[in-house]
Amino acid sequence: MGKKGLLLVGHGSKKPYNKQLIEETAQTIAQKDDSFLVKSGFMSINEPTVEEQLNAFRNEDIDTLVVVPLFLAKGVHILKDIPDILGLEEGSYAGTFRANGSEIPLIYAQPIGSDPLLAELMLKNAYQAIDELL
Amino acid sequence: MGKKGLLLVGHGSKKPYNKQLIEETAQTIAQKDDSFLVKSGFMSINEPTVEEQLNAFRNEDIDTLVVVPLFLAKGVHILKDIPDILGLEEGSYAGTFRANGSEIPLIYAQPIGSDPLLAELMLKNAYQAIDELL
Repeated sequence: MGKKGLLLVGHGSKKPYNKQLIEETAQTIAQKDDSFLVKSGFMSINEPTVEEQLNAFRNEDIDTLVVVPLFLAKGVHILKDIPDILGLEEGSYAGTFRANGSEIPLIYAQPIGSDPLLAELMLKNAYQAIDELL
Repeated sequence: MGKKGLLLVGHGSKKPYNKQLIEETAQTIAQKDDSFLVKSGFMSINEPTVEEQLNAFRNEDIDTLVVVPLFLAKGVHILKDIPDILGLEEGSYAGTFRANGSEIPLIYAQPIGSDPLLAELMLKNAYQAIDELL
């Protein structure tokens, strides 16, 4: 079976921390799961852009492209700007993508949203701060 | 032993999704770990504000207050605005808070940042979208 492409989309920021977060998370995803070919791209300020990374995926041997936004919650980027770039109608989460001369499925995943893992992450940060500082 | 206060700080948004995310996460944290008394407050647009929730904690029987920002990465809110509200010097993550007539420790935790749990969360969202849409 071929690999799936995973494009991790970040917001971008003038400060370096958002870019670091996105790129380190992309690296961790690639290490955790080798069924994905992982790239990351940004909506604004930072490079590579989402468009540049979509173009980079066109030459890759992938059978599906999954676009995963590393955003906390829905907002205008999630609901409008990213679907526009992906050629998806607003409210649609599945389309097609042309890679290596074939049409492959394009899937647009949800942002982080409310998830028990997020609560766990916040508790972990709380306990780490207590352990270091209390 | 007394409870610790945990103030989950959100960005706030004109759309309802950020507020939902913060409040649902606060609820999940409270369910997971009853050593914390959990409240949530917002930096802008939504209510209650961070200041209002700090005032609400002044009457609670807590022995420590931990402030946990539900933000992806450091930015101006994390580095300057929240420390200002907490009366912390920039770069300092520990101070004091007056609750119930005593000075108790105030601890300021890190935002989400790069964490294996975050990569796991993004993979979970990727697989969920693939399962539903492919």
